[in-house]
Amino acid sequence: MVVKTSKERIFEEAANLFREKGYQASSMRDLSDRVGLKPSSFYNHIKSKEEILQKICLDNAMKFVDGMKAIKKDSTDPLEQLQAVIRLHIDIAIKDRSSVTVFNDEWKHLSEPHLANFLKMRKRYEKEFKNIIETGIKKKVFRKVNPAIALFTILTSLKWIHYWHKPKRKISVKDLEKDIINLLVNGVSS
Amino acid sequence: MVVKTSKERIFEEAANLFREKGYQASSMRDLSDRVGLKPSSFYNHIKSKEEILQKICLDNAMKFVDGMKAIKKDSTDPLEQLQAVIRLHIDIAIKDRSSVTVFNDEWKHLSEPHLANFLKMRKRYEKEFKNIIETGIKKKVFRKVNPAIALFTILTSLKWIHYWHKPKRKISVKDLEKDIINLLVNGVSS
Repeated sequence: MVVKTSKERIFEEAANLFREKGYQASSMRDLSDRVGLKPSSFYNHIKSKEEILQKICLDNAMKFVDGMKAIKKDSTDPLEQLQAVIRLHIDIAIKDRSSVTVFNDEWKHLSEPHLANFLKMRKRYEKEFKNIIETGIKKKVFRKVNPAIALFTILTSLKWIHYWHKPKRKISVKDLEKDIINLLVNGVSS
Repeated sequence: MVVKTSKERIFEEAANLFREKGYQASSMRDLSDRVGLKPSSFYNHIKSKEEILQKICLDNAMKFVDGMKAIKKDSTDPLEQLQAVIRLHIDIAIKDRSSVTVFNDEWKHLSEPHLANFLKMRKRYEKEFKNIIETGIKKKVFRKVNPAIALFTILTSLKWIHYWHKPKRKISVKDLEKDIINLLVNGVSS
C-alpha cells in the first residue's frame, strides 16, 4: 500500500474539487475541509490556490512534452508516431481524470509569467505534433490536407475521454484506443 | 444597411465581452459601458446577466436542433447526413464566433431550470447524431466501432474551429469543410 503524504493528498483533493466546482468557485477553506486538515497545518503545505493550479498545469504539460519526446525517439515513421500520440492522450486522460480536466479547463486562470510559459509549452507541443503530420503528408503516408486543420481536428477529437471514461462503461482502454485510432487514421467510412 | 436595435447590440456586445473576459468575470457595468448606454436606459432592455447567457445558450442550441431536423428531412443516407452535420457545426462556428464560444464554454453557469433544459436538449441532439452513426454501421456504410466513441470523437473534433478560424487565415469555408469531412470520413491515412 502506498501511503500518501499530506501534500500529495492536498493536490489530489484539489484536483477533484476544482473539477467539481470549477477553480474560481473553489476556496482554500473548501479544500482544507475536504482534506481534513486544520488551516494552521494546511498552510504549512500550501501557500495559495494558484500554487496548486500551477503545479497541476505544469505536471500535465510535462506528461505531454515527455511523452512526445519518447515517441519521436522510438520511431521515425509518421503513422506509428501518430498512433503513439493518440495513445498518449488517451492514457493521460484515463489515468488521472480530475487532474487532466483542471489542466484542460482552468489553465486560463494562471497568472503571469505562468500563463505565458504554459502557452509557450502548448505551442511547442502543437508544433511537434504538426511536424508529424507534415512529414506524413510529405512521405505520402497521410492524405494531402492543410496540416493545421489536421492537427486541430485530431488534437481536439481527444478532449472528451476524461469526461466520459468511467469504469462502469466497461470498455477496456485497449478497445477505446483501437476504435479511436481506427476512426482518426482510417475514418468512419468503411 | 441593417440597423440594429439596442437590445440586439447588447446581446452582440455581451457575447464578445463574455468570450474575452469569461462570463463570471464580466459585470453588467462592463457591458453597459461597452454598449454606451446609461444604466437607466440599459436596464430597460435587460434584467440580468443570466438572462443574456440563457438566450445565447438557447439560441445556439436551437441552431443545432433545427439544423439536425432539416438534415434528417433532406436525406436518409447516413454518410450524406454525417457530412451535412459536420458542415452544420462548421457553419455555426464560423458565423458567430463569440456567441458559439460562450455557448460552448459558459453553459455550466446557467441556473436551474435552464441548466437542466440545456442538458436535456444536448442529450437529445447527441442521440440524434448517434442514431446516424448506428444506422451507418448497420448499413455497413460506416466501420464497426463503438457508436458512442465515434459520436464523441467526431463531435469533439469540431470544437476548435470557432477559436481558430479568422479571416487572416485565408482559408475558405469550403476548403475547411472539405478537409475536415475528408479527415473524419476517410481518415488522415492516404
